[in-house]
Amino acid sequence: MAEFPFHIAATDGEARAGRLSTPRGDIATPAFMPVGTAGTVKALYLDQLRGAGTDIILGNTYHLMLRPTAERVHKLGGLHRFMRWDHPILTDSGGFQVFSLSELRKMSEEGVSFRSHIDGSSHFLSPERSIEIQSDLLGSDIAMQLDECVGNPCEHGEAANAMRLSARWGDRSKKAFGARDRQALFGIVQGSTYADLRKESAQRVVDTGFDGYAIGGLAVGEGHDAMCDTISLTAPLLPQTRPRYLMGVGKPIDIVEAVARGIDMFDCVLPTRSGRHGQAWTWDGPVNLKNAKFAEDDAPIDPSSSCPASRDYSKAYLNHLFKAGEYLGPMLLSWHNIAFFQAMMAAMRLAITEGRFEAWRKEMRERWSADQPG
Amino acid sequence: MAEFPFHIAATDGEARAGRLSTPRGDIATPAFMPVGTAGTVKALYLDQLRGAGTDIILGNTYHLMLRPTAERVHKLGGLHRFMRWDHPILTDSGGFQVFSLSELRKMSEEGVSFRSHIDGSSHFLSPERSIEIQSDLLGSDIAMQLDECVGNPCEHGEAANAMRLSARWGDRSKKAFGARDRQALFGIVQGSTYADLRKESAQRVVDTGFDGYAIGGLAVGEGHDAMCDTISLTAPLLPQTRPRYLMGVGKPIDIVEAVARGIDMFDCVLPTRSGRHGQAWTWDGPVNLKNAKFAEDDAPIDPSSSCPASRDYSKAYLNHLFKAGEYLGPMLLSWHNIAFFQAMMAAMRLAITEGRFEAWRKEMRERWSADQPG
Repeated sequence: MAEFPFHIAATDGEARAGRLSTPRGDIATPAFMPVGTAGTVKALYLDQLRGAGTDIILGNTYHLMLRPTAERVHKLGGLHRFMRWDHPILTDSGGFQVFSLSELRKMSEEGVSFRSHIDGSSHFLSPERSIEIQSDLLGSDIAMQLDECVGNPCEHGEAANAMRLSARWGDRSKKAFGARDRQALFGIVQGSTYADLRKESAQRVVDTGFDGYAIGGLAVGEGHDAMCDTISLTAPLLPQTRPRYLMGVGKPIDIVEAVARGIDMFDCVLPTRSGRHGQAWTWDGPVNLKNAKFAEDDAPIDPSSSCPASRDYSKAYLNHLFKAGEYLGPMLLSWHNIAFFQAMMAAMRLAITEGRFEAWRKEMRERWSADQPG
Repeated sequence: MAEFPFHIAATDGEARAGRLSTPRGDIATPAFMPVGTAGTVKALYLDQLRGAGTDIILGNTYHLMLRPTAERVHKLGGLHRFMRWDHPILTDSGGFQVFSLSELRKMSEEGVSFRSHIDGSSHFLSPERSIEIQSDLLGSDIAMQLDECVGNPCEHGEAANAMRLSARWGDRSKKAFGARDRQALFGIVQGSTYADLRKESAQRVVDTGFDGYAIGGLAVGEGHDAMCDTISLTAPLLPQTRPRYLMGVGKPIDIVEAVARGIDMFDCVLPTRSGRHGQAWTWDGPVNLKNAKFAEDDAPIDPSSSCPASRDYSKAYLNHLFKAGEYLGPMLLSWHNIAFFQAMMAAMRLAITEGRFEAWRKEMRERWSADQPG
């Protein structure tokens, strides 16, 4: 593995602000990674992502291996060249989507066989095959080990079995990854919401040794408080000196609370998915632009924003675009939401650097009471 | 009416290259107007339209009067402010869509009553109401008179009746429009493919007197050759000194042949509609990017283009985006097509200016044999 340099410039309580350096560019942390499922962050241009402050995006191994296939992306020069994104890409292992989207799964110690949700074709994913796809064929900068994902709530025995299989798959992932100069591999802590399992998992993942450490199996039904508790007990078990990544999270309030517990990296489809459905995230919480009350509201979503989508178009116009089913509605609102999430990350980095993160967090908790999980 | 200055800088045969000046900016002619049906040119950002060389766009009165309603657009500052387009806008009269989209139409000398295709609500459009919507409420720069639109083929008697009603509506439109400093009104010649009716219509429209003259009722089933013949006989009947606009046309070869017959302005949904469905227009004719043969084609659509959508993305990537149903496919291909149409208009303007339009036209006819109407 390439130990990408990780410099923690400031801490404030458990929160950390720093920089993860990769051959394709630096990543300011805490970082939010927009999700580019199938080789595109839905409805956004790459220069909009960069202009909003995006240092790294996430690609989904499951989607890309099915279409256009990892072999085809490789033949076309790898994922960066295929989609024309020259900055870092983290790929997930494919495991999460196999467990949530595919059909007719069959698990074994060796791996998981499944049928594509697109065309029913048969596929097999193992720790070794996932690394081959991510690191050799797609050519991502950061690969994730394959893990078995369970939802919450989950019986202790089932969570233990999935966690231990994931730990063994982590060992195999590391072996398959081998020595690489310009690519990194992250391990994943599992164990549902059980403290004993999270401890055992963290110990095993740290013993194996990775370039970074992810917390998986959260934001899958356990609720905000249980998620926070699990982060609180897991994060301190991971090396202080390496980046910590909370997978698939989340709402703004989830991200703020996770940063307060020492998390450095996030990914979530929320800003783009919400944007396609007419929901804008703002400093005052979420707003549904499809609501009739905005039909004659001449004000923009956020006149103080530096993002044109947030600042230059009236809520009345956005309301109209969504009612008329026009492309520009999802385009503008996905852009706005990504810009808002990145502005939130930047605000957190600055607050941590200036030693006032706790006050900032308190203000956001008050503003975003409506954003609490229902 | 405001007689917007129209300067013909060069002619080559019947083809003219010039400039129509409006208070919101100049329009280089021959001009192509992308269609912004419901207050947005589908899937494009305004800076992409401008960057491609767009001087003027078209707005659809029918769509806007139904949603968000002309009154609401007016309340929000007019169509330019609503959609943030500071350059010229031409609005159609609403007539064409009433006849093609609406339900339960009832025609009379006074106007046409109809039900919305969106929600079934009742509406009435007369020459006076159309002008009120276009010029007072939406605030377009160029308004079109209301006309009765018939398809082709059409019986002589029916075509004559529709043409004469349109001529009377033209008189009423002009009266309703009155004297305006910063807005113009165009009349429309009808008469299907009948020479006697086109002549009578042209005479009546010219007698009424407008700031510009449109040829309507073409590209509605008569075929390329009959369209060209009708333009050939109609265009010379219109004042040399004023802009001539061929409504709703068309394919590249149609536009080139119309320019060769003295037409100055065009509008068509073709580039954006084709783009949403995977079809790219090129110097070598139309190309369907969804075709499997492009799945591993690493070349861009047009490496010589100045448009990023045409130049920077591989056909393989576009093929993937359309297969995966991603927003970015229609976004990029609509952008490419608009850029191609505008590059074609620029090439024509230059060829006319340099006195080599006939040779250019001949080359395009050869390249675009496949683009002939089927």
